[in-house]
Amino acid sequence: MLEELKKIVYEANMLLPKYGLVTFTWGNVSGIDREKGLMVIKPSGVEYEKLRAEDMVVLKLTGEILEGELNPSSDTKTHLELYKAFPSILGVVHTHSPYAVGFAQAGEDIPCMGTTQCDYFYGNIPCVRHLSGEEIEEDYERNTGLSIVETFKKNKLNPDYIPACICQSHGPFAWGKSPFEAVHNAVVMEEVAKMDFITKCINPKAQNAPGHYIEKHFSRKHGPNAYYGQNQKK
Amino acid sequence: MLEELKKIVYEANMLLPKYGLVTFTWGNVSGIDREKGLMVIKPSGVEYEKLRAEDMVVLKLTGEILEGELNPSSDTKTHLELYKAFPSILGVVHTHSPYAVGFAQAGEDIPCMGTTQCDYFYGNIPCVRHLSGEEIEEDYERNTGLSIVETFKKNKLNPDYIPACICQSHGPFAWGKSPFEAVHNAVVMEEVAKMDFITKCINPKAQNAPGHYIEKHFSRKHGPNAYYGQNQKK
Amino acid sequence: MLEELKKIVYEANMLLPKYGLVTFTWGNVSGIDREKGLMVIKPSGVEYEKLRAEDMVVLKLTGEILEGELNPSSDTKTHLELYKAFPSILGVVHTHSPYAVGFAQAGEDIPCMGTTQCDYFYGNIPCVRHLSGEEIEEDYERNTGLSIVETFKKNKLNPDYIPACICQSHGPFAWGKSPFEAVHNAVVMEEVAKMDFITKCINPKAQNAPGHYIEKHFSRKHGPNAYYGQNQKK
Amino acid sequence: MLEELKKIVYEANMLLPKYGLVTFTWGNVSGIDREKGLMVIKPSGVEYEKLRAEDMVVLKLTGEILEGELNPSSDTKTHLELYKAFPSILGVVHTHSPYAVGFAQAGEDIPCMGTTQCDYFYGNIPCVRHLSGEEIEEDYERNTGLSIVETFKKNKLNPDYIPACICQSHGPFAWGKSPFEAVHNAVVMEEVAKMDFITKCINPKAQNAPGHYIEKHFSRKHGPNAYYGQNQKK
Repeated sequence: MLEELKKIVYEANMLLPKYGLVTFTWGNVSGIDREKGLMVIKPSGVEYEKLRAEDMVVLKLTGEILEGELNPSSDTKTHLELYKAFPSILGVVHTHSPYAVGFAQAGEDIPCMGTTQCDYFYGNIPCVRHLSGEEIEEDYERNTGLSIVETFKKNKLNPDYIPACICQSHGPFAWGKSPFEAVHNAVVMEEVAKMDFITKCINPKAQNAPGHYIEKHFSRKHGPNAYYGQNQKK
Repeated sequence: MLEELKKIVYEANMLLPKYGLVTFTWGNVSGIDREKGLMVIKPSGVEYEKLRAEDMVVLKLTGEILEGELNPSSDTKTHLELYKAFPSILGVVHTHSPYAVGFAQAGEDIPCMGTTQCDYFYGNIPCVRHLSGEEIEEDYERNTGLSIVETFKKNKLNPDYIPACICQSHGPFAWGKSPFEAVHNAVVMEEVAKMDFITKCINPKAQNAPGHYIEKHFSRKHGPNAYYGQNQKK
Repeated sequence: MLEELKKIVYEANMLLPKYGLVTFTWGNVSGIDREKGLMVIKPSGVEYEKLRAEDMVVLKLTGEILEGELNPSSDTKTHLELYKAFPSILGVVHTHSPYAVGFAQAGEDIPCMGTTQCDYFYGNIPCVRHLSGEEIEEDYERNTGLSIVETFKKNKLNPDYIPACICQSHGPFAWGKSPFEAVHNAVVMEEVAKMDFITKCINPKAQNAPGHYIEKHFSRKHGPNAYYGQNQKK
Repeated sequence: MLEELKKIVYEANMLLPKYGLVTFTWGNVSGIDREKGLMVIKPSGVEYEKLRAEDMVVLKLTGEILEGELNPSSDTKTHLELYKAFPSILGVVHTHSPYAVGFAQAGEDIPCMGTTQCDYFYGNIPCVRHLSGEEIEEDYERNTGLSIVETFKKNKLNPDYIPACICQSHGPFAWGKSPFEAVHNAVVMEEVAKMDFITKCINPKAQNAPGHYIEKHFSRKHGPNAYYGQNQKK
């Protein structure tokens, strides 16, 4: 079932080593079929070199496994909560890419310091709070998802405009309108995290880009009058 | 029209991924035919793997598109202003290479700390000021070009001697006597930005190279009595 | 003799350049046959490109060479002491990978700042004290091994739960249930050292991950109720 | 003439891009035939991809060119002074490798912080002072060589034990018993400079390795009782 989506999710997973976002098996991509209410995700702990499209696991949004010989990614419940809370997203990715992890371990947002980030993110990429011992005990992966959703709700962030976050002491999650777009956003996040790391080493007091830069760059690419790329009328 | 220049501009664009200066579509190179008063530039947002020489867009210096199925780079007006103000340059390049962006985000010149930079740049690579909200509103890309020109005029910098700059909170522009030389200068800028980043991490109080070093290295390669390379008499 | 183990040790050694952990000949992997009480180790100072499985050296745990035309790794005695003191380990690796060396030269543990490390290490990767001039004079390599064992004993660290350390002003050692697992742990150590380096540059006051994160991540992968990967029941 | 040495010098030059030590043409290797009193060096500013063994330039130690269609490296006089002052060396290399340049621009020795450096260098890699305006005016490249020699004489450093230096605001020079060994030492210098950079970012107050470490590691590889590698009796 869902052979086409499995192929897409497989190929999106294979982009993670291609873009240098993962070491060993430290990453996973999922996709969703909104009409059927089914999620497809990478199996847990399988080496990318041995991964095949048919290994992808199909689950209901309740977490029930419908198809797949292998265990789904251990982060499955986090993916599920994101799909439930953010109805417009169709792909989710989690990695341990080192610069995004650096900000997660530092307990700081990835600050919106320049136009590279503004082209994709309408402001800072937020750092989501620690879970309590009780939250981890009760259901670690589900509560990770809920804490992300909480951060976006509480700070009135639009997950379509800020399609990523980092979880403190853990690492990045990104999403998008497809599994490929989710991976694309994860690559951008890692690249801007690297740029911000360099910036902070050069000048620890460096500031965010001015607000009108963030407005301009995000809107020239994503707003109603976007004029970046080939998808808008000349 | 301008098939040869299109091929050159295409090939110069393809050097950007080769030298690791771009992620995705984050860069563009242009060239100019001074006699005909026409600029050739990469189309906007097209993946390098799919780019072809015939995709290059031909424009008048007024910005009017003469040839090309695709939208020109969204930075087109910045390129145009540079060609208009700096009559000796024949190629322009813009990238988001991470170390140059780091200095742009830090709001600092790329300082002339050593002979590597002196061999190509007669001093610091200047950091161009932020645009105001009004300038961005009115015409962002054109005003970016004008702010670069303003920086060179105000500080009496010779664009032939300092063939690059970084725009604050944005990123680097470089230029040269050809599209290839522009890319060459962009590679050097990224490399010296990396060296300066390393230097500042080792010693945050490190100083620029002494003035006589800058004089010597620039002139032994570019002065009337240059003796670096094979282009001068023994 | 021990042809199979020699092949395994050879292949594990060849993973070091593959994973970018070594420059020139700066690394060595060994394996042990516990039943026969014999260790197999890379010869000293041989280039990886020229290394062959039959070059591996076989020694008794007393250090006596049983087979091999070449001198064993100069770190042989350190490997031997680790096998003697940590009865569950079956492979040992030493490298000069740059981020782990960075922490060793800084004289600091590789702190457990996030879940990447928690997945493999139950806390900090300890920095082992300097040897005295006398210890170096007497038997440098053997005393290096003994100082590692001392650190684990004194701090009640379980070498199965923390399968690596760094020796101050020197570099990393890692181990595991096989030569391949030892190399795997060395790769993880280098990757988390890089992440911690980035973290400390961003925020010099960044803290370790909370204790309940360390518990959770280590136990979901290694505990009796592990549910990461495919080795446990669904 | 000197066809064999030209081939060796050519091959040693080609190792520079292989080991990632050079961008564009920013490096040069030379070799010397002590009996004939002749030096062979790379031509100036020639791209590595187009370089051929027969392009190498042959000079007398007076600087007189005996053979070669192309100009010799602009750093030729620096090489010559090193051969004249350090009679045991048979190869010299100059690069702009970024971490060594970082220390040169910081105006600091590459400190001997760990055993990686001790294995090849008997202490710090010294940072050679700036030249005065007069020295640069009079004969820049020759005086660069003389300032290196001055540093070793004044500080009673043995160029066989410390086969490299960095020139302030400029970059590294290394040497050895052959052009290949010179390149080998340049690779080690860059690698330990990177390690020291990482160390200083982690802990700006990190100290050098204790003296008995430096003694031990250097002597176990280079002393009369060396036991690293395969060149000594078991």
